[in-house]
Amino acid sequence: MKKYAELSKEKLKLEYEKLLEKYDEYKSMGLKLDLSRGKPNSDQLDISLPLLSEARPREKCFSINGVDCRNYGVLDGIPEMKQFFADMLGIKTEYITVGGNSSLQLMYDTLARAMLFGVLGSRRPWCREEIKKWICITPGYDRHFKMTELFGFELISVPMTPTGPDMDMVETIVKDPAVKGIWCVPKYSNPTGNTYSDETVRRLAAMECAAPDFRIMWDNAYAVHDLTEEGDQLLDIFTEAEKCGTLDRIFYFASTSKITFPGSGVAMMAASPANLKHIEQFLGVQTIGYDKLNQLRHTTYFKDNDSLHKHMMILAEFIGRKFDITLKSLSGLDGLGIAEWTKPRGGYFVNLDVLPGTAKRVYELMEQVGVTLTAVGATYPYGIDPEDKNLRIAPTYPTDAEVKQATEILALTVKLAAVEHYLSK
Amino acid sequence: MKKYAELSKEKLKLEYEKLLEKYDEYKSMGLKLDLSRGKPNSDQLDISLPLLSEARPREKCFSINGVDCRNYGVLDGIPEMKQFFADMLGIKTEYITVGGNSSLQLMYDTLARAMLFGVLGSRRPWCREEIKKWICITPGYDRHFKMTELFGFELISVPMTPTGPDMDMVETIVKDPAVKGIWCVPKYSNPTGNTYSDETVRRLAAMECAAPDFRIMWDNAYAVHDLTEEGDQLLDIFTEAEKCGTLDRIFYFASTSKITFPGSGVAMMAASPANLKHIEQFLGVQTIGYDKLNQLRHTTYFKDNDSLHKHMMILAEFIGRKFDITLKSLSGLDGLGIAEWTKPRGGYFVNLDVLPGTAKRVYELMEQVGVTLTAVGATYPYGIDPEDKNLRIAPTYPTDAEVKQATEILALTVKLAAVEHYLSK
Repeated sequence: MKKYAELSKEKLKLEYEKLLEKYDEYKSMGLKLDLSRGKPNSDQLDISLPLLSEARPREKCFSINGVDCRNYGVLDGIPEMKQFFADMLGIKTEYITVGGNSSLQLMYDTLARAMLFGVLGSRRPWCREEIKKWICITPGYDRHFKMTELFGFELISVPMTPTGPDMDMVETIVKDPAVKGIWCVPKYSNPTGNTYSDETVRRLAAMECAAPDFRIMWDNAYAVHDLTEEGDQLLDIFTEAEKCGTLDRIFYFASTSKITFPGSGVAMMAASPANLKHIEQFLGVQTIGYDKLNQLRHTTYFKDNDSLHKHMMILAEFIGRKFDITLKSLSGLDGLGIAEWTKPRGGYFVNLDVLPGTAKRVYELMEQVGVTLTAVGATYPYGIDPEDKNLRIAPTYPTDAEVKQATEILALTVKLAAVEHYLSK
Repeated sequence: MKKYAELSKEKLKLEYEKLLEKYDEYKSMGLKLDLSRGKPNSDQLDISLPLLSEARPREKCFSINGVDCRNYGVLDGIPEMKQFFADMLGIKTEYITVGGNSSLQLMYDTLARAMLFGVLGSRRPWCREEIKKWICITPGYDRHFKMTELFGFELISVPMTPTGPDMDMVETIVKDPAVKGIWCVPKYSNPTGNTYSDETVRRLAAMECAAPDFRIMWDNAYAVHDLTEEGDQLLDIFTEAEKCGTLDRIFYFASTSKITFPGSGVAMMAASPANLKHIEQFLGVQTIGYDKLNQLRHTTYFKDNDSLHKHMMILAEFIGRKFDITLKSLSGLDGLGIAEWTKPRGGYFVNLDVLPGTAKRVYELMEQVGVTLTAVGATYPYGIDPEDKNLRIAPTYPTDAEVKQATEILALTVKLAAVEHYLSK
């Protein structure tokens, strides 16, 4: 088929009639589908059930260094859990402090602490800064953006490129001392799915920041969430930062949320020993310690990095299938010149850019037919997509059949919105 | 025996020689004992092992309202966990929001949020208040005091009486609009073990506070931690506050930490619906939700309030035995006029007041013989006991034999320090 932009008004009208007929058919079906939630399907969660089926008598409640994990104490996590994360991420155990069930909460805590007390090297608590700014790569993760918005940062958008954030822009922006940090999802980024290149990681570690307490929030949420045996390779930012003498710049986060159970995984933060020491004085007032039994559950199940890899390859089958179904549906848009989308090699999302000015209309059309999409604009600071074109497609939660139907409708509504757009000109 | 104060110098010297001989005997034994930690013994934790031994296949991973507890979501906790806490505490489910493994962390979060954004009714975030003050009942819980100290509150001491805080003082102090709140452990208070009288609860609910955003941090940590079938009765502060139109004044906390596993229990916060609504907007940015599987573990094990009560009576045997041993050792101080101590009806501590000016010396003598006590002053704001007399005795963690030996040595050192004191005059 020809590109829509090249069709005559008459041909467009014919196409519109055809699409509308099909759309009304779907509409009459009273569907209730959801492509908005970046969470695993229940079948996928069954793979991790062995974590819950193993009985834990007293003798299995102790960590390798003899701590009774049922009791109070151990602020920074049991040694075997640190080792698990160190192996998984290729970082040093000394950099790791283990948290509760949510890396997002660790990020919030970290920023809330910075707001109230500053970070290592801060001249004052961040809440005392008259103007403070934060870099957001777009499209990106809405929960990141909302957090820095809540804390009163002015959010600066920097576009994502195939190799990561536009580093020329980032390097310029950080010359402003009011810029305190940047959000990064460096591997299989949410929602674009791309992985930062070696050069990007090196430039982030090396760049000259005017703020002495600038921080990179390195949310490596999809570190081992590859769809293929090889997976993308992400350079270790700690190694690069060490070379540049900027080790304190890095606040690194990860969790097992999308490895085992999203609600009951184990999260961690990693940072330089100097940073950890600075944080500990506050953390010790904040809590007596996180859930160590859940740490044990994880380290009992994952004997080594190899068993983790095998586990992830099983999950990859579930997720890969949903992506394949999605991509097959979207292939109906091929050659029409009205959409571009990513072919993920990992992570949880397909990023769909529709004809500028039509994303909201697609959302609306989908809503009317009973399919929920992630809110348009969610992937941008303040919830505003300046071009009204980006849609984050999350196909992991529904069943295969539901994904098929929902994404076929999606392809249809993308066309419908585009035709409407051209006809209105 | 006569009171030490009435002994002649010669008799005191003889007593000193005798005590010192015994003390040196203990010293030569190279002991390593600990009476400082308010945490359960491992044997006591075994009682809750059924929580960990039950296999959890997929069909047992859902809450009563059909939520897959392994997955993301449900910010405020599953309904059955709310019901558990409502029954346990005699409060409404609508007031409850369930947290992670630590009520202390919920308190920290609550205050951190107040610092950054204020509470319902605040004119500005608390971090923007030039002077802010907080009431601390003494002796009290060091971790409470440290938290408000960290957040920059000026701590005001109010003495504990047998019926709770000195309410005349409290009512006067809250007339200062800079006073933002008060820490309360209303039942089996840490460390004095007494329970607030009905009148105290009523006065706390009714008192006129100058600050429109005054908050009572109601840490009901020992709500069901009775040593006897009856237990102390604590009036429900929500009911009283409702009558007075001060419902928003109450931030209520509790957990299963000292019911099941201190490191892996479930914590909760309760507050008025208006307060909860105010908090939710921030909480939703802070996390996607707490560990729901651990909530399920608890509600599966505790079928009803009756099974909870039976469970607590079994724990009471463990704790009661340690208290009995402690009290027997301390009875060696009877009639000497150098110490007073509590006979707990619940909770985790024996509160020991020694001869003013000798608590630090007792700590030192104990340390030199290899017995760790809670740091002197820990039970007071800024870690300073103005009379140098209060010692918090925590006998639950060591074995019975260790408690016996450690508390016998304690009685000895209390005498030794008193004799030294009188001799130096």
